[in-house]
Amino acid sequence: MSRIKKSCAPRYARWLQSTNNITQQFLAIGGRQDFVSLAGGLPASELYPIELMREAMDRALTRWGSHALEYGPVEGFPALRDAIARRMSRMTGRRFAVGNILITTGAMQGLDLMGKVLLDPGDLVVAQFPTYLGALDAWRARQPVYEKLTWDLDRPGFDEALRRAKFAYAVPNYSNPTGVLVPTPARQLLLEKVVEAGTLLVEDDPYLPLQLDGAPGPSMLAIDSAMGEQAPYRGSVVYLGTLSKSVVPGLRVGWLVADPELVQTLAVAKQSSDISSSMLTHALALEFVDSTFEEQHAPKVVAVYRERRNALLHAAEEYLSDWFEWDVPPGGMFVWMRARDGTGAPVINTNDLYAYAVDEKVAFVPSSVFDFEGRLTTAMRVNFSRSSPEVIAEGVRRLRRAVERYLTSNSRVPPSLSRASF
Amino acid sequence: MSRIKKSCAPRYARWLQSTNNITQQFLAIGGRQDFVSLAGGLPASELYPIELMREAMDRALTRWGSHALEYGPVEGFPALRDAIARRMSRMTGRRFAVGNILITTGAMQGLDLMGKVLLDPGDLVVAQFPTYLGALDAWRARQPVYEKLTWDLDRPGFDEALRRAKFAYAVPNYSNPTGVLVPTPARQLLLEKVVEAGTLLVEDDPYLPLQLDGAPGPSMLAIDSAMGEQAPYRGSVVYLGTLSKSVVPGLRVGWLVADPELVQTLAVAKQSSDISSSMLTHALALEFVDSTFEEQHAPKVVAVYRERRNALLHAAEEYLSDWFEWDVPPGGMFVWMRARDGTGAPVINTNDLYAYAVDEKVAFVPSSVFDFEGRLTTAMRVNFSRSSPEVIAEGVRRLRRAVERYLTSNSRVPPSLSRASF
Repeated sequence: MSRIKKSCAPRYARWLQSTNNITQQFLAIGGRQDFVSLAGGLPASELYPIELMREAMDRALTRWGSHALEYGPVEGFPALRDAIARRMSRMTGRRFAVGNILITTGAMQGLDLMGKVLLDPGDLVVAQFPTYLGALDAWRARQPVYEKLTWDLDRPGFDEALRRAKFAYAVPNYSNPTGVLVPTPARQLLLEKVVEAGTLLVEDDPYLPLQLDGAPGPSMLAIDSAMGEQAPYRGSVVYLGTLSKSVVPGLRVGWLVADPELVQTLAVAKQSSDISSSMLTHALALEFVDSTFEEQHAPKVVAVYRERRNALLHAAEEYLSDWFEWDVPPGGMFVWMRARDGTGAPVINTNDLYAYAVDEKVAFVPSSVFDFEGRLTTAMRVNFSRSSPEVIAEGVRRLRRAVERYLTSNSRVPPSLSRASF
Repeated sequence: MSRIKKSCAPRYARWLQSTNNITQQFLAIGGRQDFVSLAGGLPASELYPIELMREAMDRALTRWGSHALEYGPVEGFPALRDAIARRMSRMTGRRFAVGNILITTGAMQGLDLMGKVLLDPGDLVVAQFPTYLGALDAWRARQPVYEKLTWDLDRPGFDEALRRAKFAYAVPNYSNPTGVLVPTPARQLLLEKVVEAGTLLVEDDPYLPLQLDGAPGPSMLAIDSAMGEQAPYRGSVVYLGTLSKSVVPGLRVGWLVADPELVQTLAVAKQSSDISSSMLTHALALEFVDSTFEEQHAPKVVAVYRERRNALLHAAEEYLSDWFEWDVPPGGMFVWMRARDGTGAPVINTNDLYAYAVDEKVAFVPSSVFDFEGRLTTAMRVNFSRSSPEVIAEGVRRLRRAVERYLTSNSRVPPSLSRASF
């Protein structure tokens, strides 16, 4: 009996031909001691409430006993669904029922399930551009096609694209990757068009707690909620929330708000992915959601992130402003740096620059990975949440050296990585 | 601005036309106080180690601090992967490396990811028949076709089916739904054929700890491991394990063992499903895996389940043996009861019987849901792990009343549920 040859092994599914492991690359680089990673989207782990987690476990096991160690309802631990329904009701001024809520493995599983339930190959998604890499990842296995949502909502063809779309996707609060806060009138107009087109809007809202410069205005879910009276909510918005930024990412607790019929269909899809989530993580999450923890904790997180954002902007002004420009993000975790044009010199290609940056032991995320076609090569996403102001400043100095080496290189051939890796 | 009409909402993906919510139905019935559910596959929750879980949390947070509350590596918490690699090495007598191990949300996510990575619509799976409902659920969104694996491995066409298959699927230990323990020679022969065909074998092994009548013999992973020398393992078996039966299901910690290249591809797919699992659940699982808990706990679980199996068989002998026959399952959670034939009377249709059973406030799982074509209507899966011997006996008495009413009914039309619900 001979060993199987690699060439005989079954072929992978077609969608894997179009994927990449770039997030894994970033995570690997983020873990290297001598590196400054401005690439990831990780919270400041020194703020994680370790002792409160220990106490939460005590209370949760006392309250729920074996129910916290059981397979649970696919839709989530009932008391947590109820608490999230109350939270969303407070947030929007409108009553949400438990049937509107699906608890998910982070907001990411909500994106995955929306793709699983709605997308067949070739189906259309109208996605805010540039687009959160994780959303593109989540839907890749369903092989959709994309139209860009760039907030010039009256452009020709946009209404028609919405009519053909299975759903539209937006991150109105401190968008990933751009940090943009979408103004209320644009939210209203998009929602009107979505309703008119008879499609859905997926509002991805992980950065809501990270309000560095004041409140962001009403969510699109709240705007839609204000228009209908009946309970439970049956509107056009599918809202994704998470505890990853306001408590800890390691619980992997997020939630989805939608029409109860869609929630039930998503639950069928979730059950076929993992039967149910860990009820223990739901019971732990409940201890934080059903307390004043988040409102006490958020100001600390915001103060730390604001200082770090300002440190990044200060260093970038000193070291990178000859070649890049940016808007100050009023919240979130990222500054979106666009290569300057019009100086006569060729615009910096951030795919190529990345190789020089890795050589200088600093990482960012090149813009191409936020473009479903991979063509956007003139910007970079720079994170400020994970590192101290001093480390951020050191990272920016390394970035400057990378830019200088890139610009003085004759060949423009990256020193150690090929462009093909994106 | 008018409200969206339901009829305008986007159409669901095609695979949802072929799905059902039967598991949710069973879970809902299982939660009703006045019901005896012999339907689910739930462990005996009175054996869950609540106090040990509290202590595990203390130790895990002290050992790992913020690392336990972080996004983690997609492949799983490194120390847990290492501990599982050591466990699988002990189990097989062959060295498995960390790179062979992917930690999953229960074994179910392993099934889901195998489908995501290997199946395009129309691809072939050769699946042990009757087939675990959850596996059919997991792959439905990928729209495969099936060939039956019924252990008559020399039947014409079987080798050819394996050659065309993306993978074969089997539950050799105390199979769900039949409780069958596949003998070692049949495992060996199947593995030879799988290797010969150049395909993969998915060995789903959740019931390994539930050895009611002695050890089950070597896993197919162990048989395959014995044939190759190199480390890490690069063979043809993809093994799925879980802590759901040996510790608690509520951690949702399972694992997959495979060729490291396949593990990396599955990790790409997992990242696009949920970014990473909860590192907290992995750190908690480690406290149980890296201790003598399971070896001390397993005999207690086995003793309880053996008593319950015997109670079920005893009651069934008294109340159901006129109409059903069965083999004594040497392990696991289920007795597979087949309607007797050859008495002149029509064979009992368990889809129809189910409606009478629900009317008598007892539930089982009809065989049709374990058939990818839904045609197998002459058997039922009866669970013995979840309820006390007394409750099981009461359930069997109710089942007898359901059978009697079903048989004396002239119309054979179920009283309250239509067959269409399966």
